[in-house]
Amino acid sequence: MADKAARIVRAGAGTRPVMIAIAGDSAAGKTTLTRGLVEALGPERCVSICVDDYHRYDRTERRGLPFTALHPDCNHLDIMEQHLQLLAGGQPILKPVYDHGTGELTRPELVEPRRFVIVEGLFPMHSKLARACFDVTVYLDPPEDIRKGWKLARDTEKRGYSPAQVLAELDRRTTESAAYVHPQRSHADVVVRFAPIPARDDPPGTPLSAELLLRPTIRHPDLRDVLGRDATCREASGRDRTMHLKLGRDTDGRPVDTLHVHGYVPVEESRTLQKAIWALLDQPGAVPDGLGTVGAAVRSEPLAITQLLLLFHLLDAA
Amino acid sequence: MADKAARIVRAGAGTRPVMIAIAGDSAAGKTTLTRGLVEALGPERCVSICVDDYHRYDRTERRGLPFTALHPDCNHLDIMEQHLQLLAGGQPILKPVYDHGTGELTRPELVEPRRFVIVEGLFPMHSKLARACFDVTVYLDPPEDIRKGWKLARDTEKRGYSPAQVLAELDRRTTESAAYVHPQRSHADVVVRFAPIPARDDPPGTPLSAELLLRPTIRHPDLRDVLGRDATCREASGRDRTMHLKLGRDTDGRPVDTLHVHGYVPVEESRTLQKAIWALLDQPGAVPDGLGTVGAAVRSEPLAITQLLLLFHLLDAA
Repeated sequence: MADKAARIVRAGAGTRPVMIAIAGDSAAGKTTLTRGLVEALGPERCVSICVDDYHRYDRTERRGLPFTALHPDCNHLDIMEQHLQLLAGGQPILKPVYDHGTGELTRPELVEPRRFVIVEGLFPMHSKLARACFDVTVYLDPPEDIRKGWKLARDTEKRGYSPAQVLAELDRRTTESAAYVHPQRSHADVVVRFAPIPARDDPPGTPLSAELLLRPTIRHPDLRDVLGRDATCREASGRDRTMHLKLGRDTDGRPVDTLHVHGYVPVEESRTLQKAIWALLDQPGAVPDGLGTVGAAVRSEPLAITQLLLLFHLLDAA
Repeated sequence: MADKAARIVRAGAGTRPVMIAIAGDSAAGKTTLTRGLVEALGPERCVSICVDDYHRYDRTERRGLPFTALHPDCNHLDIMEQHLQLLAGGQPILKPVYDHGTGELTRPELVEPRRFVIVEGLFPMHSKLARACFDVTVYLDPPEDIRKGWKLARDTEKRGYSPAQVLAELDRRTTESAAYVHPQRSHADVVVRFAPIPARDDPPGTPLSAELLLRPTIRHPDLRDVLGRDATCREASGRDRTMHLKLGRDTDGRPVDTLHVHGYVPVEESRTLQKAIWALLDQPGAVPDGLGTVGAAVRSEPLAITQLLLLFHLLDAA
């Protein structure tokens, strides 16, 4: 026990940990993205929390309410803000716990900040005060049909709902998702979109491609030398580029770089990019293990590159 | 709902509420003392919390531990300190909840500070940081045999223990009570001791007398004009004084005033003193109702005077 405690790298009271927010709608892929970061950093120096535990009402109480769990009034967002500030200051919190299996609010748990704190959920970037706690902010923005498929699979397999219940809930949530969850997208340093490439006919089992909006709100690694300074999607040879960086405008007109990583990128090319990103950090050892794992036997290079890019920002901020 | 919210006098974010700590061992009378204060102030401008809810382990987990619930390591005292500081700053907290009936830690509850915050429990004055949150600190210090009787009655009637279990637990706790709970006595502005008067043979049903140590750490009301400047226990007529103030030394040698209120004090004399204390405050109306209630049909003038004195300090600090 003493040994274990000694190995844990606490942020220490008053020492500011490095904090990352991963926001997105229900089943947008937050847990999958987070898992690889925790694995790569190691649980000794990294703790992750889900702020969906700050539900104000349990499942039974929510039935009688005129809004869904996606409404700010359905959550203790003031307490969430308070706890984010405490963690950002290196202080422990007694975090509420919502049991997704039973729909009950249960015994809270002590969370002590480590060197890195990952905060995922529906609302981590809801307010300015909450956003001010983070070094990096990420928004997961998959196409709605993809997200609905993920939610249907997860909620029926792991949370005990019937397909009809999930579809009805998705429907009920549409307005509030647009009003309260989606606006966080515009506050993210990185917007991640996993999706199939339109107009391509990849074989079944091809991982989804990643489109990463890299906003100039934080200093991203300069990938132009690795990926080429050409913004086109094809090499001179006529072959499709599997990864490319493109300068453009966001939907609101703001300048933004977009990194495309296609689902069919060969492992070797993906590794070359990962090594190049890793080399920009003054870190010992090779690119960490644990990146790109989607499921028990499923790997995705676009996911691995996304996670490594976020890892770059965490280690860079530390 | 809107009406009710309007009537509640919140301390308001950033506005410091007036805070009182009522510490003491298990079954020392904290809840009885607190109840009258809440009743007198009114729940619109007063909230009370019990910090015994900050148990780190539930009843089942405690069975395997080498210490009892009276050990600091058995409680989230760092989180308690954090929450006291937040309340003192006018911020809400999500307070853990320990169910004394089942021995389980359950769903936490939102506590928003009002104008007055009463904090009772085993450890509210455990650390300097915790004590700094309070305007007034009180320690309940009944004789051990009285307290054990109270604990036996309450834990068998309300908490589902057998008499043998309560006695065994009292025994197990003796060392830790002396080591961790009792030291708070020396930090209290007011030490309250309800006890029978030695060497008197009052009829059964006579309320316990109160002995109040009034330490010069806060400004107490000057009661000399009301009670007489004579420190003796008898009037010139030879009759026993039912209330008297005595200058003396505390067990550690520090100068202290002691107010004695005998259990057999007539209601009229008690009311005269209460009116005199109330008159020192610039408050509208008469002495509030709700003071001195021990049980459904049991009143105690010594308790009423104790509560009014604490009420004086709360209103004076506001």
